[in-house]
Amino acid sequence: MQFTDLSSDELKELLQKLESQYNEIKAQNLQLNMARGKPAPAQLKVSFPLLDSLGSSSNLISEDGTDCTNYGNIDGIIEARRLMADMMGTDIENVIVMGNSSLNIMFDQVSRGFTHGYLGCRPWHELDKVRFLCPVPGYDRHFMVTEHFGVEMINIPMTTDGPDMDMVEKYVSEDESVKGIWCVPKYSNPTGYVYSDETLRRLASLKPKAKDFRIFYDNAYCVHDLYDDCPDIPDIISLCKECGNPDIVFEFSSTSKISFPGGGIAAVAASQDNLKDIKGHLKFQTIGHDKINQLRHVQFFKNADGIKEHMKKHADHIRPKFEKVIEILSSELEGLGIGEWTDPKGGYFISFNSALHCADRIYELCKEAGVTLTNVGATYPYGKDPENANLRIAPTFPTIEELEKATGLFALAVKIASVETLLNK
Amino acid sequence: MQFTDLSSDELKELLQKLESQYNEIKAQNLQLNMARGKPAPAQLKVSFPLLDSLGSSSNLISEDGTDCTNYGNIDGIIEARRLMADMMGTDIENVIVMGNSSLNIMFDQVSRGFTHGYLGCRPWHELDKVRFLCPVPGYDRHFMVTEHFGVEMINIPMTTDGPDMDMVEKYVSEDESVKGIWCVPKYSNPTGYVYSDETLRRLASLKPKAKDFRIFYDNAYCVHDLYDDCPDIPDIISLCKECGNPDIVFEFSSTSKISFPGGGIAAVAASQDNLKDIKGHLKFQTIGHDKINQLRHVQFFKNADGIKEHMKKHADHIRPKFEKVIEILSSELEGLGIGEWTDPKGGYFISFNSALHCADRIYELCKEAGVTLTNVGATYPYGKDPENANLRIAPTFPTIEELEKATGLFALAVKIASVETLLNK
Repeated sequence: MQFTDLSSDELKELLQKLESQYNEIKAQNLQLNMARGKPAPAQLKVSFPLLDSLGSSSNLISEDGTDCTNYGNIDGIIEARRLMADMMGTDIENVIVMGNSSLNIMFDQVSRGFTHGYLGCRPWHELDKVRFLCPVPGYDRHFMVTEHFGVEMINIPMTTDGPDMDMVEKYVSEDESVKGIWCVPKYSNPTGYVYSDETLRRLASLKPKAKDFRIFYDNAYCVHDLYDDCPDIPDIISLCKECGNPDIVFEFSSTSKISFPGGGIAAVAASQDNLKDIKGHLKFQTIGHDKINQLRHVQFFKNADGIKEHMKKHADHIRPKFEKVIEILSSELEGLGIGEWTDPKGGYFISFNSALHCADRIYELCKEAGVTLTNVGATYPYGKDPENANLRIAPTFPTIEELEKATGLFALAVKIASVETLLNK
Repeated sequence: MQFTDLSSDELKELLQKLESQYNEIKAQNLQLNMARGKPAPAQLKVSFPLLDSLGSSSNLISEDGTDCTNYGNIDGIIEARRLMADMMGTDIENVIVMGNSSLNIMFDQVSRGFTHGYLGCRPWHELDKVRFLCPVPGYDRHFMVTEHFGVEMINIPMTTDGPDMDMVEKYVSEDESVKGIWCVPKYSNPTGYVYSDETLRRLASLKPKAKDFRIFYDNAYCVHDLYDDCPDIPDIISLCKECGNPDIVFEFSSTSKISFPGGGIAAVAASQDNLKDIKGHLKFQTIGHDKINQLRHVQFFKNADGIKEHMKKHADHIRPKFEKVIEILSSELEGLGIGEWTDPKGGYFISFNSALHCADRIYELCKEAGVTLTNVGATYPYGKDPENANLRIAPTFPTIEELEKATGLFALAVKIASVETLLNK
């Protein structure tokens, strides 16, 4: 039975029932948070042994002779580059390992476009307009970086195969002010969609009007699988090279949700010319990143297989949470015609779309009853969802018990807001 | 006997003798480096126990409840802020603790001036000209940052009390394009001079024409004393506030030469309004710095006294090296009228001035015989020493034995280059 098939009286009766359920839950004074993609404290315990992997008696000399306790080495130590390259599925010579935050690397990369330009192109601050393509719903922090630099952002609809490539190709090939596109190719934030091979090939084959157009390829969830039969995406660096576009992509990744958020290591992968350009800036910025933490990570994970094994431990914590949310959404909302949700096989988020465009009201109802969701609109540039439809659910931080309550309330809020919307039509 | 008093024949005879000594040393194929201010491997061992200060069984929750293993906390954890504030001699509320590199904080701060401007002032990229005052000789990496952003740099002579304040006051009060001055107040790089209280008060009392003029106050060597009776400088943040200029200064420091270069923690201190401004940018840049490494440092050092005690261990390694260099320079060059050198009581450098303006030739002679010095001119903006006089000696990295050889060769090179210069006059 779809809500839209109900009569006004039926809807009113339903609303009364739903509101009484809501008030009961509200009286519990819940304080739950499904807002940010953070690992839970219990989950993070799986990484605590990392803290023992280096000590005062360790050999702190890198394979290539670099003293990890002293200044220098702007590329990151060779073994950390190998580890991150293997994890990202690309070659070591394409990778530089930096500090603790891939977001900071992306920010710096946008900042360099603005202040100096890429590979000899004019810096963006000299241009009248700079535009970025933003697949939506997407990651709020990406959009915040480009907004911070005054970049005009254009919404590109996401499909289950990735961004609408017809639209992307048209913008990129026709508009010289389009300088970039934000992408999360695997388990895209927040939908969990994985870009298809076809999408990736079309991205790699773009014929940009702007010489300094770049794909900002945030491979944040490259190994963040919940199940064994995980999707595999091709190496974007090689693919772009094959397609005659070696310089078109900057790839970013980190161990933030592998070792510790904020305590991990981050990397950028790109063509040799791009890396040379990046290092040409980096050498003014720092004498080197934290090589001790790089070495600590190598000692602990050893190699990409070590990371994969470790990720299974994380998955064991996260999988039941994703499944619980999906289970509740299905049992509570399926067939009502008031919303759709994604069912990701990895990553950190589930995306929900309100069929009746009442996301703000759902958010409000959740908040009033003590459940914090990611701000409405956060998944869109400028924080504005033109459809008022999308809500991002982050199931990882709460316990299963909390999640059960929070998702139950969420489903109830969806029903109430939808009925209210139908009654007000 | 001064070299300038020698006759041409005496000079020629002397040169022959010196050259034969030089050739003997050259035949040894030395490979020594007095170029960069790096601690020696043996010295760094004093910090190795830091690596044991956190392990998998540690409590990784900050005093204020922040989970150091998870995202968040843009200010740095409270106990790290207290540690760095105490070390810098300022109040905790003035301090944010960030990542591993104070150079990176300075770079970002200059970058923000360029891209966004300070406290509502126009971003520098919109201005015709931006100028910085650069006390010389100074730190090459400071000058490289401002050069990278197209800033015009103006040489300001250093005195034993700090920069020539008459000149600084004139520029700052009259020229709106002057937006900053680079300062290393204690054990200035490379002279080792300590700014006098009078200089600091005059800096804090500047009446800038530009509202967004800032003192870039790199307190890199605040606790890097070689002797017990070390000079003490006042807290610049309080001083500027007292003088009615709360927002005029950004102070930077790090534990790079306290714990590990590249593996330490860095901090910025500034007024509340400046910190708010900084955080207003920082929140786009990162979700937080490495709080685990912050906690590791607090666990190890405990407090400012712990840092002071630790610095004595470093000093025990460095002091004999400084004394050895000074001893050789004195015994070899004193009274010859061909050069002057500083005798720092802390920091990482000794500054040498060639009286006959032949620094490039001294550098060359050293290089040919296998001793690397910091590039001639590096201590000046644009790498250009208009006097061709200054050379920076970094005594910390080589062993005492290496240093003895290298300094001996250096003194010989000074003599040869000076005689050559006199003969060519």
